[in-house]
Amino acid sequence: MRHLAILGSTGSIGTQTLEVVENNEDMKVVALAAGSNIDLVEQQIRKFHPEVVCIYREEKARELARRVADENVSVLYGMDGLTACATVASADVVVAAVVGMIGIRPVIEAIKNGKDIAFANKETLVTAGHIIMPMIKQHQVLLTPVDSEHAAIFQCLNGEHHGEISKILLTASGGPFRGKKREELAHVTVEDALKHPNWSMGRKITIDSSTMVNKGLEVMEARWLFDVDYDHIQVVIQPQSVIHSMVEFVDGAVMAQLGTPDMKLPIQYALTYPQRRNLPGERLDFSRLTDITFEKPDPETFRGLALAYEAGRQGGSMPTVFNAANEKAVAMFLDRKIGYLDIPEIIEKCMNDHHKISNPSLDEILAVEAEVYAKIEKEKEL
Amino acid sequence: MRHLAILGSTGSIGTQTLEVVENNEDMKVVALAAGSNIDLVEQQIRKFHPEVVCIYREEKARELARRVADENVSVLYGMDGLTACATVASADVVVAAVVGMIGIRPVIEAIKNGKDIAFANKETLVTAGHIIMPMIKQHQVLLTPVDSEHAAIFQCLNGEHHGEISKILLTASGGPFRGKKREELAHVTVEDALKHPNWSMGRKITIDSSTMVNKGLEVMEARWLFDVDYDHIQVVIQPQSVIHSMVEFVDGAVMAQLGTPDMKLPIQYALTYPQRRNLPGERLDFSRLTDITFEKPDPETFRGLALAYEAGRQGGSMPTVFNAANEKAVAMFLDRKIGYLDIPEIIEKCMNDHHKISNPSLDEILAVEAEVYAKIEKEKEL
Repeated sequence: MRHLAILGSTGSIGTQTLEVVENNEDMKVVALAAGSNIDLVEQQIRKFHPEVVCIYREEKARELARRVADENVSVLYGMDGLTACATVASADVVVAAVVGMIGIRPVIEAIKNGKDIAFANKETLVTAGHIIMPMIKQHQVLLTPVDSEHAAIFQCLNGEHHGEISKILLTASGGPFRGKKREELAHVTVEDALKHPNWSMGRKITIDSSTMVNKGLEVMEARWLFDVDYDHIQVVIQPQSVIHSMVEFVDGAVMAQLGTPDMKLPIQYALTYPQRRNLPGERLDFSRLTDITFEKPDPETFRGLALAYEAGRQGGSMPTVFNAANEKAVAMFLDRKIGYLDIPEIIEKCMNDHHKISNPSLDEILAVEAEVYAKIEKEKEL
Repeated sequence: MRHLAILGSTGSIGTQTLEVVENNEDMKVVALAAGSNIDLVEQQIRKFHPEVVCIYREEKARELARRVADENVSVLYGMDGLTACATVASADVVVAAVVGMIGIRPVIEAIKNGKDIAFANKETLVTAGHIIMPMIKQHQVLLTPVDSEHAAIFQCLNGEHHGEISKILLTASGGPFRGKKREELAHVTVEDALKHPNWSMGRKITIDSSTMVNKGLEVMEARWLFDVDYDHIQVVIQPQSVIHSMVEFVDGAVMAQLGTPDMKLPIQYALTYPQRRNLPGERLDFSRLTDITFEKPDPETFRGLALAYEAGRQGGSMPTVFNAANEKAVAMFLDRKIGYLDIPEIIEKCMNDHHKISNPSLDEILAVEAEVYAKIEKEKEL
C-alpha cells in the first residue's frame, strides 16, 4: 500500500494524481493540501477520505471544517498546516504539486521525515537545489520527477550510469509563439498566450510555456535532478510533443521517451517506480503518426530561456531572482497590468540589479524573493 | 580485460568489431574465424596476434598457415576449427558474426563452454531459438545483441521489467524500394537492390533489407531474444534510420534508442554492457536533424515480411524453411539466375510444400535446410 500526501490537490497535477489513485487499488490518500478551492477539496474529502487536509487561507479552512464536520478529517491552515500534511506519520510519499516557492519548506520537512517525494514543484529545485539535493542523499529518500520532461529523462537513465551521460536533450513544444519573431509578440494578449498547442495545464505554467521561461526553469531543475552542468543540457524544440525528452550517452547512443501528452503517465510512474503499471488511455500509433520534427529555439523570441541559462550559470541566489521576477511579471501580465514583452524585460532588469549571494540559506532565498517582489511593485507604482 | 573470439572476422561486423577492439585497450582478440579471405585474415593476425584462427576452407587454411609461419598462431579449418575458435579456453566472449546456419553449432558449443555471446548471426535464433534460449539460461551466459535494432530494444529494456512490455516496435529503413508497388519491382537488378539508403552492409544482408526479409528475420529473432509473441512485435518504417527501435510499455510510455547509423555503437555496447564507453564518431545533431518520419510497410511490396510473420507464428521447422529458401533464392538472384520477385515466391512455395516438424532438433533443422536447398536446385534445373 502506498500512502500519499498530495500538496496542491486542486491544481492540474493534483487532480490528475487523484485520477491515478482511483486507478490503483493499493494507493491511498492520507493528506490533501490546497490554497482556497474548498468546494473541490470537499468533494475530494468525501471521495478519498484523507486523515488531514490543509487549506492555506484560514477563513476558508474554517468554512471547510464546518462543511465536513461529518467526516473524520482534521482541517488545518497556513504554512504549519501545509507542513503538517507533508509530514503526517502515515504518508510514505509526498506529491509536491503546489505552485510557487510556498512549496519549499513543506518539501524540506517531508524529506527530513523520510518521505519519498514525487516532485512537481519547479521552484524548490530552481531556488534551493543546492540545499535539497544533499538532503535527499542524507535522508536516503527517493525523489521521482513528475514533470513530463524530467520524468522522460529519468526513464532514459533507467539502468544507465551517471558518468556515461554526455548530454541531456530537453524537448519543448515551442508553445503558441514558436516560429514568431520577437517584434511579433509586442501585442500578445492573455488569451493568445493561454492557447497551448499540446498540453492542458494551469494558467501560470501555460504563460511560462509560451515564453519558454518554463523550459528555462526545467533546465535549472534538470541541472539539480541529474547533476549535469548547463553546457550539457540542450533545449530542442519538438513541436508535436511526442518525444518528452532524451539523453545522449558517451557512446553516441540517444535514449528517448515518447508518449501521448498525458500527465497521468509520469504521475503514475513517479508513484510506482521502478515498476510500470497499466494505464488506461490513448497510445502512440505509429501507423498514424507520420512525422516528428525538430527546431532550434530562437534566443531573441525566447529571451526568457537565454536568461534562465544565465541565471543558472551564475547560480547562488540568481535563479531565485529569475524565478521571482518571472512569477511577479506573469501575475501582472495575467492581470493585464503589463505587456507580454515586459515579462523578460522585468526578469533581466531584476537580474542585473541583484547582488548575488553565493550559497544562500532558505531564509536568504525567501528574503531575495520578497525583495524582488517589492522592487517590481515599487517600480510599477512610479 | 575482455578476451574475444570473433567468428566472421572478415565480414562487415567482424571488421568493425576489430575497429572497436583497437579503440579499447582492455579488449584482446584471442581467436579469429573466417571463410576464405586469407589476405585480410593475414593482416588481422599481424595486427591483433590471436592464438588461433580458423579458415573454413581447408586449402586456404593451409596456405595461410604457410604465410604466417613466423607468427605464434594455430591455423585450423572446417567446422571443427570454427568450433575450436568458439570454445578456446582464453576467450570470455564470442562475437558470433558468421553469416548463415554455419554459425549454429559453434554458438551452441560456446554457450556450453560458458562463453558470453555477442550475437550477430540471425540464423541461429531464427531456426534454433527454442534450443538456444533455454541453453543461455541453463549455462547463465550473457547474450547481447549486436544487430542495430535488437541492440536498440536491448537498451530500451535497460532497468525495465519483462512483464511490463506491451509491444516491441522494430524500425526498418524500408530499403531502396520503400514506397514502390509490387509490380514496379519486376525488373529490379542486382545493382538496384544493393543500393541501401542508410547502412553499409554485406551483399546478402543488403538484398534481404531491400525485400524486408531481413526485417522478418529480425522479428523472429526479437521473438526469442525478448520473449515476446508475434502479436506484440510491430514493424515501423522509419526511413531516416535515426530511431533504431522502440519498446512500448503497459503504461503507454515508449522508450526509443536513436543514433547515427554506426554499427560500432551496438558492437561496443554488446562488449561493454552494462557500461557504455566513449566512441569516436558523429553524433546526432538535433539542430540540423529536422525530421523523423514513419510509414507502414506495404504487405504486397514486402511479401517476404508477411511470410516471415507466418513462418514465425507456425514455428517449429517453418522458420528454417523460410530462412533456407531465402538464402538460396538470394544467392541465385545475386548470380542473376532468378528475378527479384522470384525471391518471395520461392520462399512461399517452399513453406507451402513443407510438413512442419514441431520441435525440431539441431539435426532436423540442418536436414530441413538441406532439403530446402536441394528442392530449390532441383526445381530450377527442370
